[in-house]
Amino acid sequence: MPELRHDPIQKRWVIIASERGRRPEDFPKPEVERASAFCPFCEGNESKTPPEIAAIRHNGSGPNSRGWQVRVVPNKFPALRIEGDLDRKGVGIHDRMNGVGAHEVIIETPDHNLGLADMPVDHLEKVLWMYRERLVDLLRDFRFKYILIFKNCGAAAGASLSHPHTQIIATPVTPLTLAEELSSARDHYRHKERCIFCDVIEQELDAGDRIVLANNSYVVIAPYASRFPFELFLAPRHHQHSFAEISGGMLRELAITLKEVLLRIKKCLKDPPYNFLIHTIPNVKVTPKRTAYWDTIAVDYHWHIEIMPRLTRIAGFEWGTGFYINPTAPEEAAKYLREVEL
Amino acid sequence: MPELRHDPIQKRWVIIASERGRRPEDFPKPEVERASAFCPFCEGNESKTPPEIAAIRHNGSGPNSRGWQVRVVPNKFPALRIEGDLDRKGVGIHDRMNGVGAHEVIIETPDHNLGLADMPVDHLEKVLWMYRERLVDLLRDFRFKYILIFKNCGAAAGASLSHPHTQIIATPVTPLTLAEELSSARDHYRHKERCIFCDVIEQELDAGDRIVLANNSYVVIAPYASRFPFELFLAPRHHQHSFAEISGGMLRELAITLKEVLLRIKKCLKDPPYNFLIHTIPNVKVTPKRTAYWDTIAVDYHWHIEIMPRLTRIAGFEWGTGFYINPTAPEEAAKYLREVEL
Repeated sequence: MPELRHDPIQKRWVIIASERGRRPEDFPKPEVERASAFCPFCEGNESKTPPEIAAIRHNGSGPNSRGWQVRVVPNKFPALRIEGDLDRKGVGIHDRMNGVGAHEVIIETPDHNLGLADMPVDHLEKVLWMYRERLVDLLRDFRFKYILIFKNCGAAAGASLSHPHTQIIATPVTPLTLAEELSSARDHYRHKERCIFCDVIEQELDAGDRIVLANNSYVVIAPYASRFPFELFLAPRHHQHSFAEISGGMLRELAITLKEVLLRIKKCLKDPPYNFLIHTIPNVKVTPKRTAYWDTIAVDYHWHIEIMPRLTRIAGFEWGTGFYINPTAPEEAAKYLREVEL
Repeated sequence: MPELRHDPIQKRWVIIASERGRRPEDFPKPEVERASAFCPFCEGNESKTPPEIAAIRHNGSGPNSRGWQVRVVPNKFPALRIEGDLDRKGVGIHDRMNGVGAHEVIIETPDHNLGLADMPVDHLEKVLWMYRERLVDLLRDFRFKYILIFKNCGAAAGASLSHPHTQIIATPVTPLTLAEELSSARDHYRHKERCIFCDVIEQELDAGDRIVLANNSYVVIAPYASRFPFELFLAPRHHQHSFAEISGGMLRELAITLKEVLLRIKKCLKDPPYNFLIHTIPNVKVTPKRTAYWDTIAVDYHWHIEIMPRLTRIAGFEWGTGFYINPTAPEEAAKYLREVEL
C-alpha cells in the first residue's frame, strides 16, 4: 500500500509509492520507449492495459476491444490505490495516511502519433469531455479531496510512454499549491468581494502585452510572474469555479482555444516537451470532519489551466527555495507566441 | 536590470532575468560543454572570468593569476545585479522590485575533474571555509535579505559547466520555502519552547531506520517525508541557527561528514547528478522597515543542508501541485547508503 507522509516543517505531503519500490540499480530508467517498442495504448492492444473504466466508442464496439476514440484505464503502476480507508495517524512529529486514491490514464486517441495540437477540434472536444466525465465521477468518492488532471508530453516532461495520454490522480489531501491559491482567493474575496483571478484577467486584458490570445470565452496569458519561459495561464473569461461545471458549449470553445495555443507553442518552440494541469476546486462535498477551511470558499475560486513548455532544466536552487529564475520575460514570450503564423 | 516579480495568488517571487533574454530559438541550449571545450574555471584561464572577489592562494600569488586553491568570482551571467536600489512598487495587483542582489561562483579547485566526494578533507574544509567567508561578507549588505549557497553537479542537475563549483545568490526577499520553514520553526517554538529541527533529529535518532550516518557533530537523515529518492538532510546535532556562526572545528567535522555522505551517494548510485543547498537564517540585521515577522524568530531556526540526487524526472504534476511522488521509501534509501563499503 502506498503511503502519504507529511513534513511538519515544509508543510507538504509526499506519496511514498513503495510498490513502485526503486532500488539504486533501477536509476536512471530508460528515458522513453524506443520507436519500435510495443505500445500498450495503441488500438488492438486493449488486453495489455488493466480493464477500461470508460471509453468513447463507435459502431457499438464492446469494452476492451477495438473501435474506441478515447479510452480510460487505471494506471498499471498507480501512485495511489483505490481500495481501503485513509487511516490517518501521527508518527511522532510527522503524519501519515494510507495511499488511498485513484490513478487513471486517458488515452487521447488510438493514433500513436497524433498530438493534441494536431488532432481535429471535434476529437479534442471528446478528450476534454472525457476529462469532465472522469472528474465528475471521481468527485462522487468523498475519500478524495482533490482530483488532478495533468498531461506530461515528451520524455523531458516526465512522460514514459509517447502515445498521447493524460493522467488523473485523485488524492486524499489538497495539494499545497492549490491550498495556497484557494487561500489567496479567499482572502482577496473577503477584503474586496471580487475574484482574484477575475481581477488578474481584467488587468492583463487592459495591459495587453502579456495576452497570447483572447476570444469570447477564454483568455491565454503569459503570467506577470512566470516561473518558466513561455509558461501560460488559460482561463475562462467569465467566472466559473469548477471545471466539473463547464457546459458543452464551453467545452467546444475550450477545444478550439487549447488547440490554437498548443499549435502556437509547437510552431514557436519547435514541438517542445510540455506539461499542463487543470487547477479546479477541491471536492467540497467531503464530510464536515474532513473539511478544511478552504473548502468553504471554493466558490471564490476560478478554474484554469497551467501550461509549461519544458525548455530549461530546473536545478536544486528552485527545489530548495521555491524561487525561480526565468530567462524570458513574459511580455516577450507572449509577443513571440502571438506572432506565430498558423 | 533583472526584475523581481511577485505573484499575488501563489505568493511566490520570480526573477525575470531579462538580460539573459532567451528567444524561442535559444532553447534548448547544449546540455553541458564538450569534454574538449575551453574551461574558464581551470587554472591559467583566470583572465576569462570577471575579476576575483576572494581566493585561497599559496606562494603569495597575486589575484587573477595562477596559484589558487579555491577562487570566488562574480557569475558572468548573473541572475541578479549588485548595483542599485530595490525600488519596490506595485503593478496593479502585482509587485515588482529591481533585481538587486549578488550572484557569485566559488570555484572549488583548480582541478577540472576533482569532485567534492574525492577531494582530500583538508581541501574540502577550505571550500566550506570559503562558503562561510562569502556568507559573512554578503550579510553585511542589508539590501540582501537572504543568502543562498547551492551546488548543481552534473548537467541533469542544472550545471552548465562541469568544473567543480558552487553558486551563491543573495536575494532581496526571503524565498518561499525558507519563509515556510522559518514560520514552522517559530510556531513550534512558541507552543513548545523547543526547536522543531532538534525534535525531528531526536526522533530520527531514536527510530534509527532513516539515519545514514551520525557522528558527534552531525547527523545525516533520509527525511520521513522525502520528496525525492535518496534525498538527504544533514544538520549539526547541537542547535545552531546560522551557518555563519559555525566554528573552525565544526567546519572540519562538516568536511569529514560531507565527504563521507557524498562518497556514499557516489558509490551507491553510480555517481549521479545532484544538488545541495544550505538552509540558514535570513539576514536578521535588516532595517526595521524591511523586517518581516520571521526575522524576529530566526534564532529558533536550525541550519542544515538539503542534498538531492537527481534520479527521477520531475513532471508538471509536481510543479503544479507541490505534491511529490517518491518511488523509494527513505528507510530503504538510508539502508542502501549505510551498507555502501567505503
